[in-house]
Order: sequence, then C-alpha cells, then structure tokens
Amino acid sequence: MAEVKHEITAECLSIGDELLIGQTVNTNAGWLGGELGLIGIRPVRTRVIGDDKNEIIEALRTCVADVVLITGGLGPTKDDITKHTLCEFFNTRLVRHPEIEKGIVDMFVRMGRDPGDMLEVNRAQADLPESCTVVPNSRGTASGMWFDRDGRVIVSMPGVPYEMKGIMQEHVLPMLQTRFAPPVIIHRTMLTAGLGESHLAQRIERWENGLDELDIKLAYLPSPGMVKLRLSAYANTNAAEARLRVDQQAEALYELIPELIFAEGDVSLEQAIGQLLKEKEQTLALAESCTGGYLSHLVTSVPGSSAYYIGGVVSYANAVKMEELGIPSDMLELNGAVSQPVVERMAVGVREALRSDWAIATTGIAGPDGGTPEKPVGTVWLAVAGPEGVVSKLGNFPGTRDLVIERASMSALNLLRKQLIGKG
Amino acid sequence: MAEVKHEITAECLSIGDELLIGQTVNTNAGWLGGELGLIGIRPVRTRVIGDDKNEIIEALRTCVADVVLITGGLGPTKDDITKHTLCEFFNTRLVRHPEIEKGIVDMFVRMGRDPGDMLEVNRAQADLPESCTVVPNSRGTASGMWFDRDGRVIVSMPGVPYEMKGIMQEHVLPMLQTRFAPPVIIHRTMLTAGLGESHLAQRIERWENGLDELDIKLAYLPSPGMVKLRLSAYANTNAAEARLRVDQQAEALYELIPELIFAEGDVSLEQAIGQLLKEKEQTLALAESCTGGYLSHLVTSVPGSSAYYIGGVVSYANAVKMEELGIPSDMLELNGAVSQPVVERMAVGVREALRSDWAIATTGIAGPDGGTPEKPVGTVWLAVAGPEGVVSKLGNFPGTRDLVIERASMSALNLLRKQLIGKG
Repeated sequence: MAEVKHEITAECLSIGDELLIGQTVNTNAGWLGGELGLIGIRPVRTRVIGDDKNEIIEALRTCVADVVLITGGLGPTKDDITKHTLCEFFNTRLVRHPEIEKGIVDMFVRMGRDPGDMLEVNRAQADLPESCTVVPNSRGTASGMWFDRDGRVIVSMPGVPYEMKGIMQEHVLPMLQTRFAPPVIIHRTMLTAGLGESHLAQRIERWENGLDELDIKLAYLPSPGMVKLRLSAYANTNAAEARLRVDQQAEALYELIPELIFAEGDVSLEQAIGQLLKEKEQTLALAESCTGGYLSHLVTSVPGSSAYYIGGVVSYANAVKMEELGIPSDMLELNGAVSQPVVERMAVGVREALRSDWAIATTGIAGPDGGTPEKPVGTVWLAVAGPEGVVSKLGNFPGTRDLVIERASMSALNLLRKQLIGKG
Repeated sequence: MAEVKHEITAECLSIGDELLIGQTVNTNAGWLGGELGLIGIRPVRTRVIGDDKNEIIEALRTCVADVVLITGGLGPTKDDITKHTLCEFFNTRLVRHPEIEKGIVDMFVRMGRDPGDMLEVNRAQADLPESCTVVPNSRGTASGMWFDRDGRVIVSMPGVPYEMKGIMQEHVLPMLQTRFAPPVIIHRTMLTAGLGESHLAQRIERWENGLDELDIKLAYLPSPGMVKLRLSAYANTNAAEARLRVDQQAEALYELIPELIFAEGDVSLEQAIGQLLKEKEQTLALAESCTGGYLSHLVTSVPGSSAYYIGGVVSYANAVKMEELGIPSDMLELNGAVSQPVVERMAVGVREALRSDWAIATTGIAGPDGGTPEKPVGTVWLAVAGPEGVVSKLGNFPGTRDLVIERASMSALNLLRKQLIGKG
C-alpha cells in the first residue's frame, strides 16, 4: 500500500503599517504562494498586520500551517520590531554575529560608501536571535531567520521584495525542500497569445479532458494580451517519468495550437519578438496613433532592444500622419484616420522613412470619448509591414482607455510575431 | 471632562484561491485600508484565505474588529461559496429578492444581451441571506450584504475591484459613518514633484515641527516621481474649525515650497500638465531616446490629451535623431548622443518639425548595459523647448531600467511644468 503523505501547508504573515493603510501593495504574499505551489507546498492563508508586538505574537500563536513565512519589520528604524518580538516569542536573545557584521561593512564598501559613516543602527542589523539559523541576504543588510520548533518552520525575512526574493530563491526554497521533502512537481508553462481564455479553452477542450487520466493538471493563467497554460504533474514514482508525461502533453499542445504558443517559461511577448528579431538580424520601427507610445515603451522595456529597434513616430495629430508618415490628406478625408488604408500606409510609411525591415502601425479610438456608432470606442486598426508587403487587422478591444491601449498593443505585437514566424 | 471615545477598528477578509497562489495581486485590502483611514476608522489586520467553507467560518469566528469587510467569492460559479457560508454562520437562509433580480435583467439589457439567454446561475445572484441588509451594486450583478450583529458590522462584497469600490463609495462608507459616527477627519493632500522624500522633509522640517501643537498630522506618501503630503486634523469641536486649521497650514506650505507643489488631491503630474496646456491653449510634442515612448504613453494616458498633444518621435537609433530631428552628425560624434547639445537640439528640432508650442526631449542610458565611467547607467539629459527658448537638465536616476525610464520621464514632465508656470 502506498504511503499516504501529509500535505505540507504554508501561511504568510506580512508585517507593516504601510500595507494596512494601502500605501504599499502587498505583492510579497502572492509571490510566495506561487513559489511554494511550484515545490508542492500549499499556501492556505495570508495575514497582514501592523508593526505591533501584541499583534505579531498573537499571529504567531495562532499559526496553523507547517511553514510560516514572515516578511517585513526588519529595517533599522525603531518602528521595526519583528526581531525583538521573535526573541520574546521563542524565549531567546539577540547576539551579534561577527561574520554578518563583516558582510554589512563589505556591502557599504561595495555601494561606494565609507564604512566610517556606518551608524550603530546599521551594525545592529548583525544582532540576531541566538537560537535561530541565520539565512544570508545577498541583496541587503537584514538577514533572514529560520526557526524550527515543534515540527513547524517559521522564517522571518525583510519586506523589500527584491531582497526577500533573493533569500527565498537562494536559501529558503531549497531548505524547505530538504526539510519537508514535499512531493516533486514537474511543470511546463506555455505562453499563448491571440485567443482569450474562454475561446482558448473551447479550442483545446478535447485534449484537456484527456489530462485527468494522465494525472496532469492544467492551469489557465491569464494576463493582459496572453494566457499562460501550465501543465503540472506530481512525480509519484520518479521525476523522469513525470517529466516524460508532461513533455508528451506539451508536444501535443504544440501540434494543436502551433500559431498561438509564442514561448515557454517566464518571458513576455515583447521579449519573444526581440529574440526573433535578433536571430534574424532584422529591425523594427513603429507608427502609433491610438496606442500613443505604449507599444514603443513595451519594445524598449526589453534590455538590449536598441539592437533591433530603430525608433518610431507617435502621430496623434493628423498633420503628423501626413508629414512624417506620408499619408495623403485625401486618404484621411475619404476614409478617416481609423481605417485600413491609413493604418497600412502608416506601417509602410514608417518602414520606408526609418528604413527598417519591419514596422507596426496602430490607429483607433481608445476612448472614453471619440466613439461613433460605426466606429465605437475600442475600434483599432493594426498593420504590420515587412519585406513581403503589408497585412492589417481590425480589432475591437473592450474596456477602459488603459485596457484598450494595452490590448491593442499586445494584439499588434502578436500580429508581428505571426509574420516573423511565417504563420500570418 | 471630555468623553473618551472608543477607537473604531476594521479588518479585511479577502477570499479567493487566486489570491493565495499569486495569480491575482490583492489590491482590495490596501485600498479599503486607505479609505477607512480617511473616515477615521483604523485598519488593524487583513487576512487572505481560499474558497473554503471551514476557513471562512474560522475567520469569521476569530474577528476582533468593529468592522469586517469581506471581498470575493460572490461570483456565479460553484467555487464561490461565500454567500452560502454566511447563511450558515448567521443561521439564516437565501431568499430571492425580486427587485435585485429585475436589476440583473436590466443590466443584461444595458450590456446589449438578450435576457432570454440568462442562465439560472445569473438569476441566482438575486438569492441573498434573509437576515442581511442588501447593499446595491450599480456596477455588477453580485450585491453586497451588510450584517449588524453583537455590535459588529460584517459586510460582504464582490472581489472585482471596480465593483467593490463602487459599493464602498456609494453605500458602505456613508453607512459606516452613520452607524459608528467615527471622529470626523479633515484632509488636504498636496502633490509635490522635484524633491525626494528625505530632501523634502529637510526643506519643510521647521514648519513640520510646528504641526504637533496645532494637532495636525502630516503624512509623506511617496510614489514614482512625486511625494504626496497629506495634512489631517480631527474635528474635535467642529468641522469648520478643523477645516480652517488645515487650510491655514496648506497656505503656509504653498508659501514655503511654491515651485514643488503641482496640484492637490487625486491627480497625476501628466494630468496637471494637460490642464495647464488646455488653459493656455498650447500644444506639446516629444522627442524621446532613452525613455523609449514611456513619456508619450504617460501623456496620452490622459483622456482628451489629443487636444494638446500633437505627437512625438522615438529616436532610438542615431540615424533617426539625424533625419527626423535634424541633429547634425558632427554634433553626435563630438558630444555623443547623451549630451546637452544633442538633447537641446532634439527638443528644438521636434518642436519645429511638429510645429508645437512646447517640446520635451530625453536622451540617456537606461541600462543595464551601455554605461561608462563618465556616463554611468542612469545618466539622462532632459530638455524643454518653448516659445522663449530651450532649457536643459542633467539627471542621474538610480535603479533598474524600468525605474530609470520612469524617473527620467517624471523629471522631464516636471521640467515642463516649471516652464509652464514660469518657475523654471
């Protein structure tokens, strides 16, 4: 008979007045939940409390999960009381760790600051509870603390997301895997663009129905302009077998929706396009009307984008469309700025003016005003001009001004992607 | 002797598996905390739990605050169990509310859908606990529910932020003020740009020190490119007196830092600039290098920006700088693209080419690569050209690529703002 394994559970405790009053959005808890899920530990609840000793002790007293991850309250100021409260709760005291103190001094030097300027509050960050396992923080001066008591692991980390993530990835996640040996889970995440969640689900329904008996789970993770599909399988017998099972279904998915999957793992559509352009040693230019520079911002948010992005024109006024992009005034008058002839001419015009291999153009009505019965808010024409000519597409994007801009931009990037891979 | 008033406390309970696994970031709890604080109710803790009956009941059993605001779990699907769980907890049953059902049908019609297509799960959203006060939802089909038991108010609302905010602003916040009569607080929020939090604090230190004896609180609320200063006073005797006290200190602040305050209340720097341009009936054009279109995106994110924004050029490649903006090639060679002569020429060039009243230009090194010892990552030249000539500024913006782009853009907008108000 197979051993029935106890499910490992986790809870997050976020400490900070600034979280309670909405000054800072608590992104840590959700990130931690996602990372724990990937190693087979189930997040069951999250709490946010203020920098208040009694609240922290009460929260520690009422923990229910196997793993408790605490973030926040480890700064050098007197508001930050987590460390002292942990000492009281675990009946221990702070002792200075010389090797941690040295690390703090080294970090000061690396940041170009004079160690002579260090204050006692900075050095005091090397004071840590005697009975904890110190977890190094390679990205800051507040160390993590690991307590293992009565079968429960309680870890305290700084609240700065960049530092907390470093501590988790470098130390706590591997330590949790060693400590609890949670079931190994194999994942593969396919990124799709071009179909919304419900239409995508219809398209792959039959394949999805077969996953159950293969003991594979499918998660739909929608974000603007894309839906991530994550396949997961528990490694019941061995990891290689589970890996094979997942890989086979990933291949099946590639055969089912080849034109929708644009990448795997943790990349964005604009990164995937940048990669394709780099591989082909080709360049891109943009002509934006309703997206107003957002498309250009997405493209240039990728480090190294200057290797393939030449530049763009934001043609908000019709005069700019005419003068910078060579749109004839009678074409604008006859069809209106939001039209197929104009968007195609914009793409061709900017491609010629900036001498790029590819060009994207957008023109539409982002709202909230400017809509008409024939061309309501959300109507956007998109075009991609390339070595073989120009293609265009009419989109109707629902939502507020921000969402219309975002969805039109993602749709435009996907139109380019399909041209780049020859699946227009 | 003055009556000592019991402080009204609140806690938020967010329900949803998607929050625990990090698929959705929990922005509701922080927003609620901020709104409650503004009406004198203190948020003390937040919990996030899954769509699990036992977890919800346990959370309700262990509430400590006067006000408990529950969000999530009210959708029509079978995962959403909040309503049934509330019935069990409050020992009541669901009854259909005909007037709510009619409202749901009306909403279907307004959205252009055929009421004949309504499913029973849609109509079942009119089934609500018999013993609650129904709180109308003008933005969706899931009503809010208000329970008042043993001195504690428990409100359940949908998790969709747009719907929840409508229910709070239209109903729950006024209802809470009536129910608990929390102390009235008078607020004024001044928006500043141009100085970081710590330098701003130094600048206004003496004034700030005097606030205590006037019984006025000052909060620093930093966000990218700006610091909000919020003055608050409890209306101990009467609201008019507190209003006067706050207004006097707001005036004092205007006299102290006239060039830093760009607006009051809930507007952004790009909205404030749009307002200034509209009032003057003047226009704007942009020439962006390192900000890569983000500045243009900020400007066009304001509805109605087409009234004053003509367009822009994103000149990523030097060829675009030369051809579209008329930068002489020897100027680029002599000074490099990241230099004062080039940024000023960019601003003047785009202002002439697009025939605008004003123009902003940016050129710099956003990183992570491309830095040199003389011009490290974060070095950005900014310029504003206008009717009276051109001004420029060198910035050194710390942080990742995203932050350099964001900070440089906000700094550039502020440079324009100072020119527009004649305080360059």
